[in-house]
Amino acid sequence: MVSIAAMGDAEGAAYERAGVDLRAAERTTDLIRRAVESTYTPGVLRGLGAFGGLFELPAGLDRPVLVASTDGVGTKTMLANRYRHETGVLEGIGRDLVNHCVNDVLVQGAVPLFFLDYVASAHLEPEVTAALVTGVAAACTGAGMALLGGETAEMPGVYAPGEFDLAGTIVAVVERDRVVDGSSVRPGDLLLALPSGGLQTNGFSLARRALEGRLDDTVPGVGTVWRALLAEHRSFLPAVRPLLERGLVKAMAHITGGGLPGNLPRTLPAGLGAELRRGAWDEPAVFTLIREAGGVSEAEMFEVFNMGIGYVVTVDPGSLTEALRVSPELVEVGRVVEGAGVRVV
Amino acid sequence: MVSIAAMGDAEGAAYERAGVDLRAAERTTDLIRRAVESTYTPGVLRGLGAFGGLFELPAGLDRPVLVASTDGVGTKTMLANRYRHETGVLEGIGRDLVNHCVNDVLVQGAVPLFFLDYVASAHLEPEVTAALVTGVAAACTGAGMALLGGETAEMPGVYAPGEFDLAGTIVAVVERDRVVDGSSVRPGDLLLALPSGGLQTNGFSLARRALEGRLDDTVPGVGTVWRALLAEHRSFLPAVRPLLERGLVKAMAHITGGGLPGNLPRTLPAGLGAELRRGAWDEPAVFTLIREAGGVSEAEMFEVFNMGIGYVVTVDPGSLTEALRVSPELVEVGRVVEGAGVRVV
Repeated sequence: MVSIAAMGDAEGAAYERAGVDLRAAERTTDLIRRAVESTYTPGVLRGLGAFGGLFELPAGLDRPVLVASTDGVGTKTMLANRYRHETGVLEGIGRDLVNHCVNDVLVQGAVPLFFLDYVASAHLEPEVTAALVTGVAAACTGAGMALLGGETAEMPGVYAPGEFDLAGTIVAVVERDRVVDGSSVRPGDLLLALPSGGLQTNGFSLARRALEGRLDDTVPGVGTVWRALLAEHRSFLPAVRPLLERGLVKAMAHITGGGLPGNLPRTLPAGLGAELRRGAWDEPAVFTLIREAGGVSEAEMFEVFNMGIGYVVTVDPGSLTEALRVSPELVEVGRVVEGAGVRVV
Repeated sequence: MVSIAAMGDAEGAAYERAGVDLRAAERTTDLIRRAVESTYTPGVLRGLGAFGGLFELPAGLDRPVLVASTDGVGTKTMLANRYRHETGVLEGIGRDLVNHCVNDVLVQGAVPLFFLDYVASAHLEPEVTAALVTGVAAACTGAGMALLGGETAEMPGVYAPGEFDLAGTIVAVVERDRVVDGSSVRPGDLLLALPSGGLQTNGFSLARRALEGRLDDTVPGVGTVWRALLAEHRSFLPAVRPLLERGLVKAMAHITGGGLPGNLPRTLPAGLGAELRRGAWDEPAVFTLIREAGGVSEAEMFEVFNMGIGYVVTVDPGSLTEALRVSPELVEVGRVVEGAGVRVV
């Protein structure tokens, strides 16, 4: 007979010799449990010893459409890892991930329900994982959604030593007849921007290459370079929600990988493009620094980086005054034109 | 004026010098589009140029509970990568991932709605990504769910050269009053097993270490060692669905990381444990090989590997005959007893 009720204490531990630390996994679980449970909204069904997270859909929805997106934070993880001992850096990466996903589903007008995270590395470091998940949980709470589940994977040999990856999946909901789909957009509609404040989570491989060796510099107008690069990917939900509630939105775009040309036109009907007025919005100084230090062309800067515009809301000209009133951070940066793509004039 | 309508053709390509290949990303997208779209079920809302995938919940649900889970395939990816040029290996890893997730949400009695995948590596190889996603799509179709979205990340420096990670998130649905939660389980209830056929997706770091240098051997009763290790993580949905439809199920467990002791007891009410009869089920020969080659203790074998039991269904003794009739692959392997944990007698 083999008694395996308490095998956690089994000696031998061939698994650990193979590079997998089950104790570290348990310690990580303990560290993050409180942060995770703090996010639970009324929809979460608890105490089921579940293999999946259970979430009861809010009552009263007529034709609920789920909007789901998986994303990562790219190699922003590497920069964060380098400065991980600085206050709040790893938590910040967790918030970046969640906010990125919140913004992605917001484009369709959806409200977040729950999130699941994926943390992977060659070897689990409980404090690193705990910091990441603490940031994830804080941003989930900020968006009113539950951190319903996740996976922490230890994969010796797959990840470079000391590095980690962080990805996640959001599930949100919107009524079928309130899906924002851009179909009512017409030439002359206005493009209103919300400022990004920095790189958000895109272009880090290029940024690191351009600024390698200068990361610890303090640059006038920028501050410490690494801090500027790690500026938080903010959530646009608080700024956009009042616009949605008043039905002021015709289309929206989250400016992620591919920049304005890769993200803005695809939210407009075929045959329409965007004309943006350079100078209408503030371009964070960190982009000038990257352009000059890396010898990056203007065109490529726009293709890789958001250039200061984190999110674009398309509205009817007649809605401008009310939009600016209920969401004062909006900046008018251009308009919808016949054609295709993005022109910066 | 900067025209950035066609920046995909911009020369210079500082981004590529930084190690990110945007053309490879586009080629990957082309390769996988058809496979992805082949999975679309009626719930998928198409043609919205969306940042997230849109899925309309089926009509007629009273109190829908969403069940969601994120998981990876662990370092099974490394073994698959080593034999990636053999037929079907990378597609198999894609199926492994989806089936793993299908089984996880099945434990609560939930039916799959949609899936999102996450593929990451140091450098995108379009054919690798396409093979993985083709396997993911095939398994999604097999489970009747849509591959609604996903992310392909290229992260130079984070991943070891040539390796990749594959993770995914499933969203399933079950009526609130049909959630399988184990609350009706009583001592004397029967434990019925479905065979795993191999390691599924757990214990690969230990298995590779134990069998390093013997992977290409052909072992009597096992066949080629690497093929045996890569045996597909099957979906238990077809075997379990008729049981659920007839209300025969009291509790279920998917035997993943942590093996039988880590997964079976947590599906039973407090104060109850499981007694399994060794010999009641077939133990695939690959486990004997790992045990002997790696000098792994019996206790640790059970803690790390499923030992041949992929999934456990707990039923009332009075339901046994009907359960075996509608799901003939089930094998009676033990019973619920007072106590805790798992005893193998």
